Amino acid sequence: MERNLILKGNLCYSQDSKNLIMAKNSFLICENGKSVGIFQKIPEKYQNFIIKDYGDCLIIPGCTDLHLHAPQFAFRGFGMDLELLDWLENITFPEEAKYADLEYADRAYQMFAENIKKSATTRAVIFGTIHIKSTICLMDYMEKTGLKTYIGKVNMDQNAPEFLCEKNAGDSLRATKEWLEQVQNRYENVKPILTPRFIPSCSDKLLLELGNMEKQMKIPVQSHLSENPDEISWVHELHPDTDCYAEAYDKYGLLGNHEKTIMAHCIYSENKELELLKRDSVWIAHCPQSNVNLASGIAPVRTYLENKMNIGLGTDIAGGFSESILRTMGDAIQMSKIRWRLVDQTQAPLKLEEVFFMGTKGGGSFFGKTGSFEKGHEMDAVILDDTDLPYPHSISLRQRLERMIYLSDDRHIKAKYVKGKQIF
Amino acid sequence: MERNLILKGNLCYSQDSKNLIMAKNSFLICENGKSVGIFQKIPEKYQNFIIKDYGDCLIIPGCTDLHLHAPQFAFRGFGMDLELLDWLENITFPEEAKYADLEYADRAYQMFAENIKKSATTRAVIFGTIHIKSTICLMDYMEKTGLKTYIGKVNMDQNAPEFLCEKNAGDSLRATKEWLEQVQNRYENVKPILTPRFIPSCSDKLLLELGNMEKQMKIPVQSHLSENPDEISWVHELHPDTDCYAEAYDKYGLLGNHEKTIMAHCIYSENKELELLKRDSVWIAHCPQSNVNLASGIAPVRTYLENKMNIGLGTDIAGGFSESILRTMGDAIQMSKIRWRLVDQTQAPLKLEEVFFMGTKGGGSFFGKTGSFEKGHEMDAVILDDTDLPYPHSISLRQRLERMIYLSDDRHIKAKYVKGKQIF
Repeated sequence: MERNLILKGNLCYSQDSKNLIMAKNSFLICENGKSVGIFQKIPEKYQNFIIKDYGDCLIIPGCTDLHLHAPQFAFRGFGMDLELLDWLENITFPEEAKYADLEYADRAYQMFAENIKKSATTRAVIFGTIHIKSTICLMDYMEKTGLKTYIGKVNMDQNAPEFLCEKNAGDSLRATKEWLEQVQNRYENVKPILTPRFIPSCSDKLLLELGNMEKQMKIPVQSHLSENPDEISWVHELHPDTDCYAEAYDKYGLLGNHEKTIMAHCIYSENKELELLKRDSVWIAHCPQSNVNLASGIAPVRTYLENKMNIGLGTDIAGGFSESILRTMGDAIQMSKIRWRLVDQTQAPLKLEEVFFMGTKGGGSFFGKTGSFEKGHEMDAVILDDTDLPYPHSISLRQRLERMIYLSDDRHIKAKYVKGKQIF
Repeated sequence: MERNLILKGNLCYSQDSKNLIMAKNSFLICENGKSVGIFQKIPEKYQNFIIKDYGDCLIIPGCTDLHLHAPQFAFRGFGMDLELLDWLENITFPEEAKYADLEYADRAYQMFAENIKKSATTRAVIFGTIHIKSTICLMDYMEKTGLKTYIGKVNMDQNAPEFLCEKNAGDSLRATKEWLEQVQNRYENVKPILTPRFIPSCSDKLLLELGNMEKQMKIPVQSHLSENPDEISWVHELHPDTDCYAEAYDKYGLLGNHEKTIMAHCIYSENKELELLKRDSVWIAHCPQSNVNLASGIAPVRTYLENKMNIGLGTDIAGGFSESILRTMGDAIQMSKIRWRLVDQTQAPLKLEEVFFMGTKGGGSFFGKTGSFEKGHEMDAVILDDTDLPYPHSISLRQRLERMIYLSDDRHIKAKYVKGKQIF
């Protein structure tokens, strides 16, 4: 009964990447955690449901963050004028190594969980570190937030500093199995996901066995793909038998052959790689802010949308410094404009409809039917109160939504629901 | 006496574009509105000055916003997925036309002034509209904020919609003179600045007379330069006798030949144009966020810095949606990275030191000696309180400053001083 309720307000949601539905002053009916639909008047049948009246607020579906690193949250927003390799060496790796210390992890992950809880995100797919206990600590904190997440213990057994590298494939796999045994049926809200860091940091044996594990245990996979030209060359050196980076995952069965896969970035995916991503319905996590901060480049998002590929947004904390998927929507538009100007004027910049879709229904589809208010979707909702942004004239609902993408922060998020349950 | 005081805290300021000075837990002494210097112990002579102790807060010089449009503030953050011409036609021009109505202007400019007052900006150079009364209304509101500003009534007598176009050069000049008579000695904090909108919107006669006015009345000039490839082609069509856009200003004496000039954007300024900007010590207002939002391109900032040109930052409200010069600093770094990746890998991305300099001392120099805590500079200061951003380990002063650039909003601005006077 707890998940039967009615939200009243100005409802905005995506039907698809072209169509944004706006229902002014309407009722969103949620039965057993799922949307029954949007109504101007409450049907007889639902008259006894509790009504939460949010007045003139905007109500949008919960956002999905398809890619972020929880252990990097602590240092978001600094070292941002370093280049990728300096940033990894001087900041990221030393910081991730600290998570060998459970006491440190506990302090840091609590801060992370509190922050993401009050954001517009209701679903997220998250990297931990190589450390079992710390990753479980992260999962415990995230479970308590009520958000729905996939969280992965990272695998890396080569090409990493000694203080952040598993000894060999055997060790990495044993740790992964031990971790999986402990977490697989432990949570209501959190699920494990296999997380090879990226091709260069995993030995062939490790990749092969992770591929087998994916197949046998039916666990999804997340990793990084084609983020940086130097990285792509490196992968080609390590796997000279492949035509593209994605093929290196594919040859070990890690490209979503059996289970769902997310690949973050995909900035330079074209031709064969694009075909492989389509073939396996891989979710692309587009992380525009990170791709700027690490000077990686700008992904051809319009191509992916036109090819009807699975695509959502990621903050990539701490390549990105902001945890806001609303801001990420704006970043995606901005970067598509720069790409249009500097790279390819045949690819029109992204529209509000498209980025809103990616940040809600597009990424949300990794979790099944969520990220929209259409009938049958799990009802995640974010209530946005923009009354502190005055304007001297009347503006439309679409304009108010657009302003939230560019100007909102946590103060504007008045309430949040996941699968019909109120988080705050 | 009111402007004699001592600020205590963690002081951060630019010496030049390479050197950021950090003085932990120190005293900044301000006498008669100007910095006497930074001390570890208060010298005998200043023992009777009031001490404002800001504990562990950061204290930075006030920021200068070299370019923004006050009448566009009301619609910041929407229409952002339109291209430049659609945006001007559908949003900007109809909105600016509303300022013919003083009652509307009063409401909108009050909101603008309140917003900028609580930002990190202490100095700004601002476009109004073509309307005399509304521009004076803006000046009145800005005077009350205590910030130091230059504000211009816009000149435009051609190539603009009829509802936002002065009838002819004579009308535009008469209105400008009338406006100047009313405002020239009216304010302590606000000064007028000549504001031809940009070359295409001004007739030859208007440009010529504005150039004469600049020379005779010794009033500085602000305008736009080389923002967009189509705009540049248009200027060349209108002034086929010029080799570059800047030369069209120069031939009418509007490039700072006698007084100070600010040119916003300068994205495509090179060769002869760059030489003209150097020759006349023109201040370049770099507006990275606007240049993305309007898909204009990315300015070659490193070239300008290497040539020791005058350069500061602008938000270009509402081409930019954020009024924060701190955010603009981050945007400038981000865009320089994308420029490095996509345009020119010989031009290294901008560093924190460089963008901080531009946002404080670089832009501040338009107002004389300000934007730094060095001895003799007018003491503008912003107190940043970052205690609500927890971190699980200790971080340096430089890292805390960097985080403020990426993560701060108006909540972090605890107090602000202009020329030694507390604004809030």
